Order: sequence, then structure tokens, then C-alpha cells
Amino acid sequence: MGEFDLIRQHFWRVVAARADGSGVLLGNGDDCALLAPAPGTVLAVSSDMLVAGRHFLPDVDPEALGHKALAVNLSDLAAMGARPLAFTLALALPAPDAAWLHALARGLLALADVHGCALVGGDTTAGPLTLCLTVFGEVPGGQASRRDAARVGDDVWVSGTLGDACVGLDIALGRRAPGAWPDPALVTHVVQRLHRPTPRVALGLALRGLIHAAADVSDGLLADLGHILAASGVAARLDVEALLASQAVHAALRALPLPDVLSCVLAGGDDYELVFTAAPGQRAAILRAAEQAATPVTRIGTIVAGPPAAHPLADGAARVQLCDARGHPYPLPPGVALRGFDHFATMAT
Amino acid sequence: MGEFDLIRQHFWRVVAARADGSGVLLGNGDDCALLAPAPGTVLAVSSDMLVAGRHFLPDVDPEALGHKALAVNLSDLAAMGARPLAFTLALALPAPDAAWLHALARGLLALADVHGCALVGGDTTAGPLTLCLTVFGEVPGGQASRRDAARVGDDVWVSGTLGDACVGLDIALGRRAPGAWPDPALVTHVVQRLHRPTPRVALGLALRGLIHAAADVSDGLLADLGHILAASGVAARLDVEALLASQAVHAALRALPLPDVLSCVLAGGDDYELVFTAAPGQRAAILRAAEQAATPVTRIGTIVAGPPAAHPLADGAARVQLCDARGHPYPLPPGVALRGFDHFATMAT
Repeated sequence: MGEFDLIRQHFWRVVAARADGSGVLLGNGDDCALLAPAPGTVLAVSSDMLVAGRHFLPDVDPEALGHKALAVNLSDLAAMGARPLAFTLALALPAPDAAWLHALARGLLALADVHGCALVGGDTTAGPLTLCLTVFGEVPGGQASRRDAARVGDDVWVSGTLGDACVGLDIALGRRAPGAWPDPALVTHVVQRLHRPTPRVALGLALRGLIHAAADVSDGLLADLGHILAASGVAARLDVEALLASQAVHAALRALPLPDVLSCVLAGGDDYELVFTAAPGQRAAILRAAEQAATPVTRIGTIVAGPPAAHPLADGAARVQLCDARGHPYPLPPGVALRGFDHFATMAT
Repeated sequence: MGEFDLIRQHFWRVVAARADGSGVLLGNGDDCALLAPAPGTVLAVSSDMLVAGRHFLPDVDPEALGHKALAVNLSDLAAMGARPLAFTLALALPAPDAAWLHALARGLLALADVHGCALVGGDTTAGPLTLCLTVFGEVPGGQASRRDAARVGDDVWVSGTLGDACVGLDIALGRRAPGAWPDPALVTHVVQRLHRPTPRVALGLALRGLIHAAADVSDGLLADLGHILAASGVAARLDVEALLASQAVHAALRALPLPDVLSCVLAGGDDYELVFTAAPGQRAAILRAAEQAATPVTRIGTIVAGPPAAHPLADGAARVQLCDARGHPYPLPPGVALRGFDHFATMAT
């Protein structure tokens, strides 16, 4: 079976423009797809590459892989407050395997359908198993939540729970025995969080106009908040005691020793939650938006003055001050690993 | 050195929106880039993945690889008549190698600068050497040259020369001895055509409004023209004798036996020329546009009635009738291989 047959059989969807002539004007099957953002919006674009043995295990369930590959890209759109419009998929496969591809497409397209995100093109080739997705979303000009927009005095918020996927990865890799949890549902929860993350698209849309800066937590809270702080030229104070006691830490993590909890909550990657900053006057509106998006949010700290803005890619984790409930430096117990996930510095598997 | 340091050191460019607020509003360094197509235009999008050992040899000159990776994507924009705006780069590398990356970036960004195409984001990870680029171009709504727009009576045209890269690949892989060519410049020409293809962007822009359907010749003339024919529900008659005698066949190919020339010209991939159809009334205008774009074009046949439109990805090579100068079927000599390049059916290396 050739390349075009594979695409046609597993990934083909008919697309149509909206009544106002915007949206997806031309999808799969030509040299290019044609996209027209809705009037008043601009196009948010993000690319992510997932490599077997690095971002997922080679024997991964292909349906879960399809879900996750799109989810991590939609998460970038969510962080900008963009509404998903379309995506392209480039796929390298060791050999065409119809059943495997069908399951991959099922996971991918099921999540795409939830978000009305059309598959509009891509590429298929032989090679070591690799997926590269590029997603496109629409966001009203000026309403995108950029990393460089945090202001002194802002609250720092996170969505959902932190550290779950980090614990899930340890379990999936056999580094941590599930025996620590008397309730198997907690084990299932963290493993699901690793394999089937929920992109916070609805929350990103509900927060439009209410927040200043945002990023998704893919490399760990300190690393991703750090990028906001470096780009914005500010620092942050996090109340670690309140964070640990909050709903932002799932019950599954409370079964672990404190250093492990801190490592996972502060530096665990792959959660795909949102970390964002907003003026204190927006607290009530943010809680309403979170309720509307059915996604819990937790206030975890404050933006304070910091060194001048650095390169947007500079490591800003050192700009995060960890404090206790009285505002004093929080003493990290021995054994806490705070290094964020880095695809070159750290091997996931 | 971590992922962000690599990006910052080798791939960072400052971008700015145009005076009218369109173009690239936000580049590298955030969760998403923000693009706003110029008023009256839509965004053309194409993704290509290049895998070591498949699309290029692992010991390839990284500067040439950078050039080619962007060139093959710009070629898709050229086929739609789109003006390059921006691109993303996702890169998997076995290990960070500063000198190699610097050369890759040099090749990539030199071509990007020629076309005013900004690098606006992407991803970097460890893994088997793979590049995935997604390019964005602007094309006035309704002026994009789609594959399904060929009409009975149209002329069929190609740009530049066909089959060169196919011969170049044979030489690069040691399948064909350079001794067949008394003039070493001819060998250099075909190898350069393989490694440093020229995307026909200027021609694509000059042809806007003059042509009906277009595609780039990446998989071979019969395969790529075949996709136009299948999508448009037509067939084509090619005058093979005139084609072989024309400037569309480079002097380097004339040193080869006829079956090899036919295989390369009709089915050789990687040329990144344009094949397009246009009404006969546009001949003079097309020749002027080609002169303006400093890219030769050759009329090679005619669109005739054919079976109803099939799936845009259907194999349409059988819709191409090869004729001699009198319009009779052209008798293919033994030894001609007409199968187009397929990334699963055929191994490039």
C-alpha cells in the first residue's frame, strides 16, 4: 500500500469553509491547504514533534498516542486563548500497519472532532516512528495571552492538578510500584493523565480578556512559569504550603513522600495544565470562567518585581521564590529534584 | 546544552509585523506564533517531513540539507501561487552538535531570507535525525492554483528541466558512474539539482491569474500530473518526442540511453519543477511571466476529456497518454520504469 492510499484510507476528511467564507477553504489532497482566519482574528500556530522512545514508548497504545499527539498541540493553542481550527500531521512509520494506523487515526480524529479541528494536510513516509503535528487556531487580534505580558501584582494561577503525569510516567516505566496506593483508581488516574492529557482549550477560551500572561505546563511548573517571568521581566512568589494543600495537588500524590510530591508538582512535565497571571481584580471573573469551562483553577502565588526581561527562551526558574505560608523561604527537604524536563538533558525513557 | 539554548543559539530571529498590522505578529519563543495574512489573502499551508536514510543520506552536508528542507516546502507554496510568509521547524537530532546545527541553520535561513520567510517556531528533541517543516504563504482568495482546476483544451506546461535530480541521485548513490559524461559540469549540474533544488516561487507568483491547475513535481511528472488529472476529472496527451527534444530535458540527460532518459523525465522525483495547465489563449502571457521570473517553461501536451473526477489522492498516471509527434501512441522501449516515487513502495537509499 502506498503513501496516498494510507492517507486516503485512514486520515481523509471532507472539509468545508464557513458560510462567511472563512475557516478551512481547502483541506487534504493538494500541494497546500488554504486557511482563512475568521474576520477580526489572527492565526495561532504551534508545532510539536513526538519521537518513539523519547515522548512515548514504542509499544504505546496507538489510539492513546493519537489522542496525546493532538492534545499536546491543542494545549499550546489553549495557552494563547486560541480556538482550534485545523492541523497537519506528518508521520514517519517503520512499515505501514493498517490496524495500528487505524487506531492512531481513531484517537487523533476523535479528539479533533471534539474541538472541531480539521485535519488539512501533512506527509507520510517510512522512517523511525515519529509524529509531527502543526495546529492552527483563531484568536481575536490583541487577545492572545502571551508569555511576556505578566505584570507585578498579578496573581499566579494554575488549572487542574500538577505532577500527576510525572507519577504516571514513573509507574508506566516500572520506576515506582503501584503498591503505594491502596486505591487502584488513583493509579489509573495518574497513568491516564500521562497517556490521555486533556488540553485546556475551553478554559483558554473562557479566560480570554481576563488574564495577562499564560503558558501550558509541558516541561514543569517552574520551567514554564519561568519562561513567563523571563519574558516579562518579573519574578514570582509561590506559597508552597498552600499549593500542596490545595486542589491543585491530586489525592494520588498525597500517598507519596514529601520530596517526591514536591519534585512532581514543581518540576513534573507532561501535565498540559495552564499557568497564567491576572490582576487581582479579576479573581471572581476567573473563578466564574473556570466554572463555565468545568476546569478547576487554583491561585498559587503572586508576581513581584524581578530582573529585566531576558530572552524569551532564557531559563527563568530561578525567578520563582518558594515561600511558606508566612512568606518566608520554603525550606526544600533533601531529595527534591527541581530540574524541568529537557529533551536533551533528560531521557524520558 | 539544552533544547532552548540550541534554538536560541542557532535559529533565533527577531520578527516584526508589517505596517498594516499583517504578517508575523509573534515569532519564536511563545506557545504559539501569531500570523495574520495580508488583507484579501488566505494562508496556504504545507508540511513535509524529511528522514535521514530516506530523503537524504545521514552524512549529507548539513547546509545543503537546510536548503533542501525549506526548498521542498517552498515548492508547495509555489505550486499554489502563494508568497512565502513564515515557517516552523521541528527537528529530531541524535545528539546536539553545534557545528552541524550551525551549518543546517545557515542553509535554511539563507534560503528563508531570499524569500522573506520567517522562522516563527517549532520544536527540538533528541531522536533519529528528522526534520519536519510547515510553511505558510499568502495567496489572494480565489487565485490559488488548485489541482482540481484543469479544463479540457488546456495546454500542459512544465518549468525548468525534468529528470535531473533522478540522475543526480543515481550518481550520489554510486548506481551510475559519472564517466558517462565527458563534461564534468553536467555531473555537477544533476547532483546540485538533487541537493539544492530551486523552488519555483517567482514563477508561481508570476503565473497567478494566468493558469488553471498546478502541482509541483516531487514524485515524478506522471504521478504529479496524474493527481491533477484525477482531481479534475480529465486526461492528458503528452507529445513525448517534442518533450525529449525540448529544453525541458537538460543536456546532462542526453548522454544516457533512451530508456533511462524516459524513466527519469517521466517518473523521476525530486525535481521540484511546476507542472501546470492553462488555456491556449494565455500562451504569450505565460511566456512573458516565465521570462519575468527568469524560469524557462515548456509546453508539453494538452488536457483532453477523461474519466470523472476521482479522489484527489487517486493514482492518475494512467490518465496520461504518451504520444509521438503524429499523435499516435508513443511506443515505450523496453527497460523504462514509470513508477513514481512512493515513500513506502520505493526505498531511496
